[in-house]
This record gives sequence, C-alpha cells and structure tokens, in this order.
Amino acid sequence: MNTIKNVLIPVENGYDTLDVQIVDNAIAAISPGIDATKSAINGTNKLLLPGFINAHTHSSEMWQRGIMSGFPLELWLAELYDFAPLDIEKVYLSALGTAVETLLSGGTTVVDHLVLIPGKELETIATAVRAYKEVGIRAFVAPLIQDESLSAGIPSGESEQTHEPYFRSTQATLEIISEAVKQFHRPDEGIYIATAPTGIQLCSDALFTGCIELSEKYDLCRHSHLLETKAQEKLAQEKYGCSAVEHLKRIGYLSDRTSLAHCVHLTEADITILAETKSTVVHNPLSNLRLGSGIAPILKYRQAGVNVTFGCDGASSNDSQDLLEAIKIGSILHNVTDFDYQHWITPRQAIEMASLGGAKGLNMADELGSLTVGKKADLVMYDLTSLSLLPRTDPIGLLVLGRPTNVVDSVWVNGKQIVADGKVKTIDVDNLRQELFSHSQWQTTRKSQTVAQIEAHYRTVMGL
Amino acid sequence: MNTIKNVLIPVENGYDTLDVQIVDNAIAAISPGIDATKSAINGTNKLLLPGFINAHTHSSEMWQRGIMSGFPLELWLAELYDFAPLDIEKVYLSALGTAVETLLSGGTTVVDHLVLIPGKELETIATAVRAYKEVGIRAFVAPLIQDESLSAGIPSGESEQTHEPYFRSTQATLEIISEAVKQFHRPDEGIYIATAPTGIQLCSDALFTGCIELSEKYDLCRHSHLLETKAQEKLAQEKYGCSAVEHLKRIGYLSDRTSLAHCVHLTEADITILAETKSTVVHNPLSNLRLGSGIAPILKYRQAGVNVTFGCDGASSNDSQDLLEAIKIGSILHNVTDFDYQHWITPRQAIEMASLGGAKGLNMADELGSLTVGKKADLVMYDLTSLSLLPRTDPIGLLVLGRPTNVVDSVWVNGKQIVADGKVKTIDVDNLRQELFSHSQWQTTRKSQTVAQIEAHYRTVMGL
Repeated sequence: MNTIKNVLIPVENGYDTLDVQIVDNAIAAISPGIDATKSAINGTNKLLLPGFINAHTHSSEMWQRGIMSGFPLELWLAELYDFAPLDIEKVYLSALGTAVETLLSGGTTVVDHLVLIPGKELETIATAVRAYKEVGIRAFVAPLIQDESLSAGIPSGESEQTHEPYFRSTQATLEIISEAVKQFHRPDEGIYIATAPTGIQLCSDALFTGCIELSEKYDLCRHSHLLETKAQEKLAQEKYGCSAVEHLKRIGYLSDRTSLAHCVHLTEADITILAETKSTVVHNPLSNLRLGSGIAPILKYRQAGVNVTFGCDGASSNDSQDLLEAIKIGSILHNVTDFDYQHWITPRQAIEMASLGGAKGLNMADELGSLTVGKKADLVMYDLTSLSLLPRTDPIGLLVLGRPTNVVDSVWVNGKQIVADGKVKTIDVDNLRQELFSHSQWQTTRKSQTVAQIEAHYRTVMGL
Repeated sequence: MNTIKNVLIPVENGYDTLDVQIVDNAIAAISPGIDATKSAINGTNKLLLPGFINAHTHSSEMWQRGIMSGFPLELWLAELYDFAPLDIEKVYLSALGTAVETLLSGGTTVVDHLVLIPGKELETIATAVRAYKEVGIRAFVAPLIQDESLSAGIPSGESEQTHEPYFRSTQATLEIISEAVKQFHRPDEGIYIATAPTGIQLCSDALFTGCIELSEKYDLCRHSHLLETKAQEKLAQEKYGCSAVEHLKRIGYLSDRTSLAHCVHLTEADITILAETKSTVVHNPLSNLRLGSGIAPILKYRQAGVNVTFGCDGASSNDSQDLLEAIKIGSILHNVTDFDYQHWITPRQAIEMASLGGAKGLNMADELGSLTVGKKADLVMYDLTSLSLLPRTDPIGLLVLGRPTNVVDSVWVNGKQIVADGKVKTIDVDNLRQELFSHSQWQTTRKSQTVAQIEAHYRTVMGL
C-alpha cells in the first residue's frame, strides 16, 4: 500500500491538492486527509497523472538510432534491414532501454511492434517479455509479421515487378503467434500479446484474417501500420482497387480493439470508417516528420470522433523514446494545418489522448487511463520544482508545451512503484548504459546495398 | 589554459580523436598528443562542437510559459501583454533562466530581443546585461522597440481602424538605444547591444532608419521579426503596397549583419532579396508551430543561398529554451514540405546552421561558429555515455535526431569554462530554481480583456 500525500491533481478548471491511496494494484481512494501512518509518500509540489501509453514502437530499432539516412520510409526500411544483424542479447537490451525511456517520460505502457529474428521468433518474443517483466512496465508485445518480401512494399507503377516469396509461410507465421499467446499472454501480469501484421504493404489477406481469428479466439488487441506514406496509398490502389482502409474494413480487421499506427494519407471516407469501427489512430509525429511521411490529419480525426493517441515509433525514425516529446510535437504540429485556433489541441486534451486515448486503443479504458478509484494504479508523479517546469504557471501546460527534463519523480505500474526519486528501482540503469555502450561503436554514414538496388525504381514510381 | 584530451571532433566523413588547447579566449591548437601537464580535461567518450547560437528569444517570456492560450500571434500578444506585470527582479531571474537553459542545450550565445519595462528601459537592459555577465554566456541584448500601439499590428481589412498613439516618441526610443550602447555595448566582454525594432507591424520608417544610423555609427547588429504571420503579410500590403521584405530593402535595413526572426510568409522575390542582401533568417520552428504561424520555407532559403540559423523564441511561445529541441524540429519539420529527400537537412548541416550560421547572422563568422584555431573558444562538450545518446552510432546524428537529456558536460565561452560535469559553475542554479518558484504560483486559464476586445475584428479580417 502507498499513500501519496498532498499531490496536485487536475480537476475540472484547475487543480486540487489531494491524497491518493494505492491498494494492491488499484487506486483505492482519492480524497483529502487520507490517514497514512506508514508508507506515506510526499506529493508536495508534485503533479500526479495517469500513465501515458507509448502506443507504437519497435524496441530493437534503438540499435540504429542516430545513424539512419534521411530517406522516406521505403528506402529507410531497406537500409534498416541491411544493417539489422540482431541477436537475442541486443533484443533484451533495447527492450530494457525502450522501457526505461518510456517510463522516464511519463509512460507506463509500451506497445512494442517487435521485430522478430528469423528462426528465433519465439525466443525473440520471450526475450522482450523478460525485459519488460524485469522493468515492470505494462507491455503489449505485438510481433511484427508479414508474408511478403520487402520489395513488394513499393508500388509497381508502370513497370512489371516480381518479388521473391517470403521465407516463411503464412500458416507458420500464424502458428508462431498462436504459440506466443499460449506461452506469454498474461494480462494479470501486465504482459499481453497482440496480433500485428506490419501492414497492407507486406501482408496477404490470409495473414490478416488469420490474425482476426486469433484475436477473437484469445481476446487479443489488433495492431498494424496504416497508410504511413504516399507510396502505400498508391500501392493499396494497385493491390485492391480501393483504399487500404476500405479493404481492412471489408476483411474485418477494424474494431474497437484495433490500433493503427500513422494514418497519414486517409480520405474523408476512410476517416468515417475509422470512426464507425471505433478504431484508434496512433499518431507518431516525430517519425512522420523524420521520414517525410507527411502530417497526419489529427484535427480532422478528432472532429470526426476518431480516437487518437500517441506513439514514439521505433528509435530509428525518431530517434528517441520520449513520450512527452511526442505529445508536444503531436499537439502543436497541427496548429499549422488549421488556421482556426478554436480547433487546436489543448494541453489537457493532449494528456487525455496520451492516457485515456491510449487505453481505449488497447480496449482497456475501463481499467486504465484516468485517475479514477477502482482503476489500475498506473500512475506517474512529476516533480514541479525542476528548472524546466519553472516558474510556476499551469503544470499541465508546462509539461506538454515545455521541454521537461528530469521531471518524472515516481512511477507506479499495476500498483507497484518502479521509479522513485527519478530512478528506476527494478533494474540497474547504469549497468544498462554500460551494456549498450559495449555492444556498439561509433559509426558514420554507411551504404545500403538494397537502397542502391531499389532507389532508381522508387524515384521513378514516386515521380522524383 | 585548458587542454581537452582525446575528445571526438567531427572531421570530413567522420570523427577524429584529438586534443584541443584553449589559451586565453581562443582555440590555440587542435591536434593529437598535445602536452598538458596541468589543467588537462578528459575528453574520452565526449564530443566537442562549436557552441550554438540561440539566435532569437525574449527572456522575460519565461514568466508566462505553460499558461498562454492556444492563439495565433496577434491574439497571443494581446494576452501576453495583459499579464506581463514585469519587475526588474523578474527580468533578472528570467535572463538567468534563459541563459542556463541555453547553455545546457549546447548554446554559448543568446540573442535576447528584450522586452523593456516602460519607464525603466535602461534599467531593464542593465539588468539583463548583469544576468548574462554573471552566467558568462555571450549575449546580444536587442531591446525590443516599437513606436506604434499594439492594435496597429492587426490589418484593418474593410474596416476603419484608429489606434492610440504609442506612449513614447520615436526619438525618445532611439535615444534609449543610443544610451544603452554607450553604457553596455562591450564586445570584448561578450556583451553586445543590437538594434531591434519589433517589426514592420508596429514600427514606423523613422524608427527603422534611426536604427540603421545607430547600427552604422556604433557597428551594431540589426535584428527584427519578419513576416511571422499571414496577418503581417496582409498588413504590409495595406501599409506599403508591397511586401515587407521589399519595403525593408528599400529603406536599407537589410544587410549582412541583419538577422530576421521567423520569415514564414515570403514570396520567391522576397527570398531573392534576402539572398542578395546577405540577411540571415532565424528559424523558430517550435514557436511557429505553437502559434500556428506556418512552416517557414527553410529548404527554399537554403537552396537560394540564404543563411539560416535557429532560435527558441520566447518561452511563452515554445515553451522552453532548449536549442537541441529547436535544431531537431527545425531540421526534420521540413521533410514534409519537399518530397525529394535529397533536399532534406542532414544532422551535420543542422549543426553548422546552429553554429556557423548563427555566427554569420551576428557578423562574427570570422570569430565564432567552428572548431578553428584562432577563433574564440566558445565550445560545448557532450557526454556520449548518457542513456539518451546510446547505443553508440553517429554522435551528431544522435545529438540532432534524438532527445538528448543531461548531455552537456562542459561549456566554454570566450575561453572560460562556465559549465563542468554538467553543472553551471558561475551561478547557483538551485538558488535560481528557488527564486523562480517563490516568485510565481500555480495558475490555470485566465481571461485576457484585450483579446475579448479585438478577437471579433481579428476573426473577421482573417476570414474565420
């Protein structure tokens, strides 16, 4: 049991100073003057918020952050895969790193669209699960699967393109997910497996429908990339003769437990479909800028009633896992897309998108995402005496619009305190730093052979 | 004398590990194996770069960061001024805070477009100068002056608008600047006064030409806002019948020592003028997003040969003073404005824009902005073992594209080390935090009377 005394809590039109009691894994009480003879935690000059959801990332991309060329997604992916000789140890370390950066920027849940090592798929999943359990963060491990080879993700245009078959059958891939569910899907322990075809650009209908079946059988969330780039918009027309959203609706992938990363290039009709199916958009503003994918029409989504939340995306396209940065840029970026300031996202709205919006996308709005008695205690307490949050004005405004540094004082996940005094308690972060250091070396620009092979075709098809 | 041993330094196509010797206020040597029997500083696993320039800010806006409504500039300014009861003590504290945040994000120079307290103009300037001298940062204090009242900054449109005369005459204003130069302009001590009319929206030609005369007489840099908003573009046409850039060229304000904040709404002809006059664009990406001003066409500027550098802008429109954040967003933001990735800004280019680009804008490219023997030692050393810069890949890529946290290990300005082991040595930052805390209080939304008066007219004129 923990009782946080005298902590600032947002209420309608302002803040109250209250006590918050955590019993077992839940918020047991929020009120003034809770008796806390032992295990009282001083909340003075601190702000308590529900934990945010890092609703889309790829943990192992941490190994290539800072080094990826300035390319659009399709070429960037080719470079990424050319230089991704992952091993299990690296999967473990980057999952730890992703969890730590997420926690220290206000996140209590991570959705890891996990790149699998070929031939070691279940071992990869087991390793990420182990890392997240050690840190204690709530984790949706969403194995990134496909059944078409990388070159199939680029539109053919006028040319005839043939693609190598993918090295693993659709059925074998679905069996991996099924086995992963049996071995690792443990909602009570804060570990969830989600179905997560990478997207229409690299997946057959058979893979999507197989995932739907698994989702229904085992009560799993569904995740996917969706219309991140113009190339994918073009590809969907080539492949289906309709938009990717229409196609996903037709085959039944969209639902109130489906979260879709990016959603940059959608039509008005597509937006209506997302609203009707209660699907969630995961906005990854920094990745969308870095890869030149475009500005997702987030204000339109909100006006249409589509649920929107934030993700960092993998650290090779961002190149950080700082949720507060994603929330800031994901809010203010849209002010240049609509001149009427009455439509702009306020800091309070941004916070709600990042917490309750994320919970909705994971079908957990009844259990997570707000400071509500009875909900799970996934909580973050911010130190408002950090220079970056001074002078004192509106705490949430400072947190969202500033550049908060060293502000996360404490984090609870499922009622357990895993960050205290700004330090992760569950793992040794200094040791993690040393491991990340020793497993890497300074590099400069590299040449990707695959990019050299496909760049000319890409430029032609995209009119460059 | 300081000798930094074994520090990573960017060279063409990579990095070298070298020693850097600082003698007096200059870089005396850069080579391997410099003998340093005393005052050697360990540069192992650290990166040395020239200091960046925070090329546009308003220090006292720190007092309202986090609290300003989501408004476009014209309404935002009205709110800002309604709640800006500045006193000298606050000017002092926010100048310290601005300097500290600039230093700890890689900046060694700040350009403070300083809001003056009416009736205490010279005292305001003296106070900011005192704060910057105490911290030891290089500072261009650019008193923000105007000679028209705030409402004149909004286009009239179809309506007849009359404006109160400004409370101080043009001549009296120019005399303040002249006196400020005599009292405070001390280039040898790292303190510079610059002429800085707020912009065409609130300044007469007489004020601009008076500033030109002062600039020539005393060898001062020139600064101004320029075409930050659509409203200003419209206003320039109403006021001059031509673009603001054409007008400023005609009256002679543009030059190789003129830096212009924002430059969001320029025509192709305007861009040519900036290139011809060797004027510098100061890009403030976060402020431009926050206020919905638009995306400045930075890639076009670079292609046209216009010098571009970065600023944080005042902390009421950002709401931080983190240069690394401004550099990151000011780089990747433009990838969505030009689909051809061959035009995108690379991390190395961004670093050069922030250092040498800033120096050019201040007419100091011979003295600042690169790691060159003989230049002034304005240097920043980054700790590459911070979690946010791991795993090791390309140090500059990590610094620009990541979200570096606690990475500034050491800072030298004019040869003097003012940050060591990540701590500012010249002032007591904990004490500063306490002062900022005690001079402020938690607030929520406020109602601006001026906004209530002008909002309807603004919406009509801007077609909302």
